[in-house]
Amino acid sequence: MTVLAETSERGLRKLTLSVRRPGENVPAVVWLPDSDAARWPAVLLSHGGGLHKEARYITRLAERLVRDLGCAAVAIDQPYHGERTPPGERGLTPLERRSRIGLDAWRARNSSATAQAVDDWQATIDAVRGLGAGEAAPFGYFGLSLGTRFGIPLTAVEPRITCAVFGLFGHPGAGDVDAAGFAEATRQITVPVLFLMQWDDELFPRDGGLALFDRLGSARKTLHANPGSHTQIPPPEMVSMIGFFRRQFRGGDQASTD
Amino acid sequence: MTVLAETSERGLRKLTLSVRRPGENVPAVVWLPDSDAARWPAVLLSHGGGLHKEARYITRLAERLVRDLGCAAVAIDQPYHGERTPPGERGLTPLERRSRIGLDAWRARNSSATAQAVDDWQATIDAVRGLGAGEAAPFGYFGLSLGTRFGIPLTAVEPRITCAVFGLFGHPGAGDVDAAGFAEATRQITVPVLFLMQWDDELFPRDGGLALFDRLGSARKTLHANPGSHTQIPPPEMVSMIGFFRRQFRGGDQASTD
Repeated sequence: MTVLAETSERGLRKLTLSVRRPGENVPAVVWLPDSDAARWPAVLLSHGGGLHKEARYITRLAERLVRDLGCAAVAIDQPYHGERTPPGERGLTPLERRSRIGLDAWRARNSSATAQAVDDWQATIDAVRGLGAGEAAPFGYFGLSLGTRFGIPLTAVEPRITCAVFGLFGHPGAGDVDAAGFAEATRQITVPVLFLMQWDDELFPRDGGLALFDRLGSARKTLHANPGSHTQIPPPEMVSMIGFFRRQFRGGDQASTD
Repeated sequence: MTVLAETSERGLRKLTLSVRRPGENVPAVVWLPDSDAARWPAVLLSHGGGLHKEARYITRLAERLVRDLGCAAVAIDQPYHGERTPPGERGLTPLERRSRIGLDAWRARNSSATAQAVDDWQATIDAVRGLGAGEAAPFGYFGLSLGTRFGIPLTAVEPRITCAVFGLFGHPGAGDVDAAGFAEATRQITVPVLFLMQWDDELFPRDGGLALFDRLGSARKTLHANPGSHTQIPPPEMVSMIGFFRRQFRGGDQASTD
């Protein structure tokens, strides 16, 4: 791991990292409370399709996690995204990239990158622990859409992740190269989950979202659904997410009504 | 309206009332902040089937509304419930009452009381305004199961109700004597709604709950679903409800992410 840059502003430190990997290093950003706490929980922030590690909703969520909860937050450029975008697709909007490649091929390419994304996140967890997180500090996961495509297989195999926000995805998935593997991973999830759906999602039909929520193996899971299209999640869900992580890191959903 | 009793404890006033009605008076309880505020929002708390105005979850919600939000809260014994329970059913548990009458007849009787319940609530709103709520103070509504059976027709015709928590009910309803009227009222709801579902509800099948949420006419509505049976709503939903009313009374869901 190499620290490429460090800034600090109003109690919030931000490190720009390169996580060393065989083949291709993973560009990462870590947001931290500006204190020497040796142990903090950290939330892995997995961006959506066509976006990158400093997409606006990612950085806003990171800042809330640090300032409101005293957590760390970590984002990476996932395969084919951010600094890892293939040369022919650079400078294009997510919609332009998807149109150029075609939705089915776009989804198949993302799906085929699942194992890589899981490896990248596991190496990133190792790196973040090296920054000072205690051995026992838990990790949360946040990832919608592409972030759920990668996050369900990751959470199924990664015991250091103790809670997750998923959503904007379906069962069956979309363009999955290993639909059976994804379905099995969904069943294997046991950590508490907050699952977000958009009731009028144009990319993932309603029934598939409901089916994916239903299949999650977790005993403690909550579905939040709101009217609107794929990207129109209303502002109160930011509050829901912060509240969800607060409850988990303080000892579980059942322990408190605060 | 007659005030039958008044108590005050740690900043919380509680009034026991009888709301005068032609025919049968309505037993009511009002919880208020112990201050002379001339205007406060009030939340109408509508108990579930077989229960009464001081059921445990009703009084807990009332106390949170008063202490956390500075609201008033109002509960009544709805038709056939609490002090209005028919003599032959007094002293029985909700399940015993339902078993004695039979589920279908129980539901038909409740449904047939809808117009009465709407009248009772409207008279109660008038009475609570007489206690000191300003003319413009908004009312919220909370009612699950039987509380939704009555609350949707009430909210459809009562402009003083500006937001509502519904849930644990379905479309089509159950034992409705006027299914078309209920369906039409559902479409007529335009206020922001938080809708709670239990994913494994043994009394209201999942598809009906989803259909009822879908039919609500409100542009701003949120579905929260959790695993478990009809009565097993997990504690964090209390936080969701308090947060929902807080946002509404402070000027709308879209205005804030706090």
